[in-house]
Amino acid sequence: MSDRLLGKRVLVTQASDYMGPATVELFEAEGASVVADNQPLDDADTCRELVARSGRVDVLIANLASPNFSGTEVTALDDTDWHTPFSLLVDPLHFLTQAVLPQMIERGAGKIVVYGSATALRGLKTVSAYSAARAAQVGYVQAVGVEVAPHNVQINLIAQNYVENREYYPPELMQKESFVASLKRQVPAGRLGTGFEDAAFALFLASDESGFFAGQAFPFAGGWVQR
Amino acid sequence: MSDRLLGKRVLVTQASDYMGPATVELFEAEGASVVADNQPLDDADTCRELVARSGRVDVLIANLASPNFSGTEVTALDDTDWHTPFSLLVDPLHFLTQAVLPQMIERGAGKIVVYGSATALRGLKTVSAYSAARAAQVGYVQAVGVEVAPHNVQINLIAQNYVENREYYPPELMQKESFVASLKRQVPAGRLGTGFEDAAFALFLASDESGFFAGQAFPFAGGWVQR
Amino acid sequence: MSDRLLGKRVLVTQASDYMGPATVELFEAEGASVVADNQPLDDADTCRELVARSGRVDVLIANLASPNFSGTEVTALDDTDWHTPFSLLVDPLHFLTQAVLPQMIERGAGKIVVYGSATALRGLKTVSAYSAARAAQVGYVQAVGVEVAPHNVQINLIAQNYVENREYYPPELMQKESFVASLKRQVPAGRLGTGFEDAAFALFLASDESGFFAGQAFPFAGGWVQR
Amino acid sequence: MSDRLLGKRVLVTQASDYMGPATVELFEAEGASVVADNQPLDDADTCRELVARSGRVDVLIANLASPNFSGTEVTALDDTDWHTPFSLLVDPLHFLTQAVLPQMIERGAGKIVVYGSATALRGLKTVSAYSAARAAQVGYVQAVGVEVAPHNVQINLIAQNYVENREYYPPELMQKESFVASLKRQVPAGRLGTGFEDAAFALFLASDESGFFAGQAFPFAGGWVQR
Repeated sequence: MSDRLLGKRVLVTQASDYMGPATVELFEAEGASVVADNQPLDDADTCRELVARSGRVDVLIANLASPNFSGTEVTALDDTDWHTPFSLLVDPLHFLTQAVLPQMIERGAGKIVVYGSATALRGLKTVSAYSAARAAQVGYVQAVGVEVAPHNVQINLIAQNYVENREYYPPELMQKESFVASLKRQVPAGRLGTGFEDAAFALFLASDESGFFAGQAFPFAGGWVQR
Repeated sequence: MSDRLLGKRVLVTQASDYMGPATVELFEAEGASVVADNQPLDDADTCRELVARSGRVDVLIANLASPNFSGTEVTALDDTDWHTPFSLLVDPLHFLTQAVLPQMIERGAGKIVVYGSATALRGLKTVSAYSAARAAQVGYVQAVGVEVAPHNVQINLIAQNYVENREYYPPELMQKESFVASLKRQVPAGRLGTGFEDAAFALFLASDESGFFAGQAFPFAGGWVQR
Repeated sequence: MSDRLLGKRVLVTQASDYMGPATVELFEAEGASVVADNQPLDDADTCRELVARSGRVDVLIANLASPNFSGTEVTALDDTDWHTPFSLLVDPLHFLTQAVLPQMIERGAGKIVVYGSATALRGLKTVSAYSAARAAQVGYVQAVGVEVAPHNVQINLIAQNYVENREYYPPELMQKESFVASLKRQVPAGRLGTGFEDAAFALFLASDESGFFAGQAFPFAGGWVQR
Repeated sequence: MSDRLLGKRVLVTQASDYMGPATVELFEAEGASVVADNQPLDDADTCRELVARSGRVDVLIANLASPNFSGTEVTALDDTDWHTPFSLLVDPLHFLTQAVLPQMIERGAGKIVVYGSATALRGLKTVSAYSAARAAQVGYVQAVGVEVAPHNVQINLIAQNYVENREYYPPELMQKESFVASLKRQVPAGRLGTGFEDAAFALFLASDESGFFAGQAFPFAGGWVQR
């Protein structure tokens, strides 16, 4: 490893979940000083206090997770489950972003990288609330991205699917022949992405190399969606 | 006019606002029986009761409006304004859709047309909350669209911008030379779309002619965004 | 049927192939005067002469077909087959468009509708040359669309797949259980689109109702691709 | 610099033009062994011979340039200029790709990175032929990308615009106030991208870090187009 994040202070939310562990490991190896936070981010004040407490934040990794209620048809979704992905994925993205932007704008430099979902870009059945919330993240990133670009602050999103993850893809599932076959049918790459590959893309977006992207959502799904 | 909606019962929400008047006029001219509702749709039960009270609904026109807070930078957005577009645009879309789908699925036929926004597809500054909510509509439509397509129910969205509208574009603005010039610079068509053109596209999507679209967002913005 | 094309002169190319027959039938029923041409359009002069000979053309339907060489891996594609889709799909689109635009621009009104392919929007294996040529059509329509929009001329494209067609889907294939099952798996709508549905969308794009679209590619594929 | 391409043999075409110099400099600094070719690639055999002569090619950088004839309306484009961008941008992309894929498939590893254009993704007036050819590159990459992904070969494209380049943006233009102002109006980032930033993205796509992208076109244009 080299020093692509040397001297950078990076705040990673929900650092034990989702893409948190792979991110923290790689970013520290690249020289970053990582604030790995683990609390639930369920209201605006918690988000604001986290940012306030974190001091200088050169890079915010918005790593937010939510149940997707996959398998529940839209007609059967209960009202609580409808709201859950918005509360867990969209509200904290905004409150964290809003809290961290002033210091980035003042310094004329900053990066926000969002681990999002490819379900925002391609329709899948029985994930309506989750897909809507993931799409809200994309719309938010697009709008804020062009707004803060003149300040040399970049916010971009990784629209991922089929990435290794013990919760969605437990080892026993990964060994089933039928799962391996369906993966080859659904995903051009024929396999799951690794946490390292995902974090490596986040690293690229978090580093000084990526100053000319603005408010973009990048499919990261082995070709399952391309744009 | 012909009878492209003859025998269809159409529920139009917020019928006096946004694209409501143009829609009701054209749809009635095309033979539809229109339920033109005007109440605020600010909670789940109101949405459910509206659908229950409307009897057979062959076509739902989800015409939902919200302030967009244009001009407010994301760092200055207050918490109430953050939530407003989600409450006015996304929640009622879901509760109306969820309430109307069972009868459509049972009959094996139905159309839902959403008047959405092109800000879901192209980033604009100082409309972060609104853009996020409009993008949530797109993500919702994409996911629900593929879920209900096998039942011969189609849900699609018009992603519009630069459409005539007395609130956004009052007559005195329309006559300013600087506005006319900026329109020619921003919008390839060089003019605003008319309410009739917008309703004519909704008519196409509401009619039996459009059974092979599923969960799509169509830019309708004079070329300001193309995909 | 009504008179949505009353008084319009429409030129349909390769009128016996691909979407030609469905288009001619519907457009004539809607009051158009149709010039149904059937010659191969294999060079610039043939395209120019066809337009010159056709007199006033209010609407050009660019209905162009090509073998897609499906099943041939890119490494096995021979040089002639590489060039074929460009010669049959892209060159004549340009030469026809270039020849017909001056009269449309002069009148300040005109429509060009291109029957294109959804393979331009979503990658499929073993159709590399065809997909590239179909994407070239999309890029051409996007660029020309914004260029001619100020003249009130609209050029748009139907990005279709899974539409009924005796060559790609002969009756014996349509009756195979395995084909029906694969259709349900691949296409959210669970069926092929009909020629009528396809022509009905072309009718919408050819009529006076669609003046606020500019250079767009519309997926028409039962949800197989949504944007 | 680190060794992100250590041990890789990289073929860069037209190495003195367009993004060639920035690419060669960065890739060599990252440990690659670069074959920097400079001949015109104007027929299939030249492409094949170049690849044959280059030995092992782990990474192909398809750096192809063409005049764009910007300012020439589509009605004024002459037949030679229509064909030029296809001959210079699309044909050699195919012949190079076709020639290099067998060795990559045999090794079960390889990367092809295409320097393309954002004009493929967003319509611009008076660049019709160029935009069509750039879109053909995108369609080709999408199709070939899903075809070769199962072999662990990745082909992806950088859809760029507003990148520093002495031919398009000579120093005297860059110093004009009116140019600087128009840049701020057109491009959210408010500036041109640098050759280093462009090459840094190509480096990411050429390295072992990017194995889970397949046939994608990535906007690289300071937010001028986002998807």
